[in-house]
Amino acid sequence: MSELEARRGPLTASAAVHPALQPWEAAGGELRIGGQPVSALARRAGRTPFYAYDRAKIAQRVAHLRNALPPSVHLHYAIKANPMPAVIAELARLVDGVDVASGLELQAALDAGVNPAHVGFAGPGKTDAELTQAIAAGIVIELESVGEMRRAAAIARAQGVRPSVAVRVNPDFRLKGAGMHMAGGPSAFGVDAEAVPDLLAELAGLSLTFVGFHIFAGSQNLNAESLVQAEAAIVDLAIRLAEHAPAPVRHLNIGGGFGVPYFPKDVSLDLAAVGQALHPLAERVAHALPEARLVIELGRYLVAEAGVYLTRVIDRKVSRGQTYLVTDGGLHHHLAATGNFGQGIRRNFPVAVATRFDAPATETVSVVGCLCTPIDLLADKVTLPYAEPGDLIAIFQSGAYGFSASPRDFLSHPQPAQLLV
Amino acid sequence: MSELEARRGPLTASAAVHPALQPWEAAGGELRIGGQPVSALARRAGRTPFYAYDRAKIAQRVAHLRNALPPSVHLHYAIKANPMPAVIAELARLVDGVDVASGLELQAALDAGVNPAHVGFAGPGKTDAELTQAIAAGIVIELESVGEMRRAAAIARAQGVRPSVAVRVNPDFRLKGAGMHMAGGPSAFGVDAEAVPDLLAELAGLSLTFVGFHIFAGSQNLNAESLVQAEAAIVDLAIRLAEHAPAPVRHLNIGGGFGVPYFPKDVSLDLAAVGQALHPLAERVAHALPEARLVIELGRYLVAEAGVYLTRVIDRKVSRGQTYLVTDGGLHHHLAATGNFGQGIRRNFPVAVATRFDAPATETVSVVGCLCTPIDLLADKVTLPYAEPGDLIAIFQSGAYGFSASPRDFLSHPQPAQLLV
Repeated sequence: MSELEARRGPLTASAAVHPALQPWEAAGGELRIGGQPVSALARRAGRTPFYAYDRAKIAQRVAHLRNALPPSVHLHYAIKANPMPAVIAELARLVDGVDVASGLELQAALDAGVNPAHVGFAGPGKTDAELTQAIAAGIVIELESVGEMRRAAAIARAQGVRPSVAVRVNPDFRLKGAGMHMAGGPSAFGVDAEAVPDLLAELAGLSLTFVGFHIFAGSQNLNAESLVQAEAAIVDLAIRLAEHAPAPVRHLNIGGGFGVPYFPKDVSLDLAAVGQALHPLAERVAHALPEARLVIELGRYLVAEAGVYLTRVIDRKVSRGQTYLVTDGGLHHHLAATGNFGQGIRRNFPVAVATRFDAPATETVSVVGCLCTPIDLLADKVTLPYAEPGDLIAIFQSGAYGFSASPRDFLSHPQPAQLLV
Repeated sequence: MSELEARRGPLTASAAVHPALQPWEAAGGELRIGGQPVSALARRAGRTPFYAYDRAKIAQRVAHLRNALPPSVHLHYAIKANPMPAVIAELARLVDGVDVASGLELQAALDAGVNPAHVGFAGPGKTDAELTQAIAAGIVIELESVGEMRRAAAIARAQGVRPSVAVRVNPDFRLKGAGMHMAGGPSAFGVDAEAVPDLLAELAGLSLTFVGFHIFAGSQNLNAESLVQAEAAIVDLAIRLAEHAPAPVRHLNIGGGFGVPYFPKDVSLDLAAVGQALHPLAERVAHALPEARLVIELGRYLVAEAGVYLTRVIDRKVSRGQTYLVTDGGLHHHLAATGNFGQGIRRNFPVAVATRFDAPATETVSVVGCLCTPIDLLADKVTLPYAEPGDLIAIFQSGAYGFSASPRDFLSHPQPAQLLV
């Protein structure tokens, strides 16, 4: 048994050694989030289920990044990971800019007081209305295609302004080991690297101010080596493309893709290794593109591990030898935890009985939601402490792509609360 | 070429012969829904994307069912398939009752004027608040477990009332060919058939009025033979269990599970075959359980094929030989069409260029949404007529588990409209 297991007992079949559980503490037998026992948070929320995001853990994550990465790297927060206004406001104080993916995310960024010059807007289907908003706000539009460039230029010309634009590039290499491949082949995202020179030539004649590139190779990567390879390849590509640019590169968003461990065999990303490799890369950028603000854009990595989804056990039942904990939450609140958000194969998120966080794991149960569908499965045959109606179940790694990425109206249940504590 | 292809050209690689496309008509080259061209509907909606539900097609579906099924069968609408209030109101006039899965669905049913005696409430995680609502409303509570029965009885006793309850049974057989298996093994849903006699013995002493059973064997079944087998097995089981009941069976919900064809090789359910087999079964019920109201509960089958999701092309781009139509919709509006709603393997929903509905299919394209994620794929490499920005793309079979079952806040785009036309 590991030291952790010895201290608190094997929490779940997988979670005993799972990195997601290690930073969390118990007091009086209960999981604490932001220093508060979960039962107190449930009373504060006024209802269950709820999401709780730990403010200190978000700040710690940013501090770890600042410590590991070269000082010249600018950190951006990708709002899509968690658009709760309080989370955006918290991160706006801590990071150097944000990235938005819609007109409403743009508004949220400005509401939080982010400097428009440090807001990037990527997204393959920006409408004319969104381009108009972006131009009026003075943010950086990350162009996804020739067509979008022309639409943006037409709107800008009609308004007599010259908005800042970067070119999102679909790279000509593929990142190994990423959870999602977003590069190397055909893509709906960005302009194929080989087509960028022609686009830049046309851009030079339009009512647009070229500021740089956005090159992103994949997301949810837990492998430092492949991440570092991708970053190096992205910088190479940017330097190559800069030769065709009508103005110096002042903005270079090399994406993020830093993953977090969700599943039983996942291990945490070796941030120190990523940071070490970034030092010479940052120097390379400083030399080759001296005016460039080197941006790493992170969403999931900043917030996922700080968030927990808490749902209350409503019923405990045994059916043909299998024990079910039926909760008041489910798929409608946390689609990803049920394996229905882009995962090919359903695997369990790290889970615990939050109100018996110190208790030994003694039985194998399935945790289900309250919906009338067999896909509403939060944890399949996990080993947990005995739990009964009234207990709170915690699903960890839930701070990103949880609340906002779930079909919350499905079956018309009440909305879950969200707390930043 | 089939007659259909000859008339309008092969619409898509798969859709030319797909049953989902057959009932739809064009006028002036445009798909019409409820007699209106889609471009007029887009103006009426005031925005794209939008869902349009064809009122006449819903009524036709009910009429076909009435025609095929024995007159003694009562049709219920499962609100969870599409909870748009106007759809509920329309169906409330056409069917004999509704089934709800939450307190808010219950409220919607009562708002639509449904007789509470013909409202059933199933769901494995009913809260005390929901049980209180159900008891106050006078609807039929479909008990999912011994624990839920005891909670309902305690609430009823405290209020001095005797609510009507049915027992949801987890059958001891498995339905072949269903899209989702919900029976035969352990389940979070209902009471194991073999445990029902003991539960009924306890129920007899509680402040509850037993009215019958709810036995459901699976959903999205396109195979008439397996559906008929399941219905026969359900009736057998109900008759067996009725011997242990403290009162005559007055309510027998045998579920539904009637599927609709979504994917290239799917064929429509042979409703006539299902209806024929139901005649002797209904007679059997009339003989063995003479007071029973035999209920078939349908959600998807009533509304899915009447609904279309319309999204506008924002960009057309070619990347490394592959053409993408980038739309203003996507996964956030129509999760199921992107293969992220319980499907193991992603397959294309039937799709067409709604504004060029008569045009010949001439190119292979992928239709993507506007989100920054590669899983936002509405149609993968389908053969369609040439389309460009401004055209409307139609995703068929979208009247059920579309709007309400999608993560509509993801990336903070505007909500799609819903029209019942």
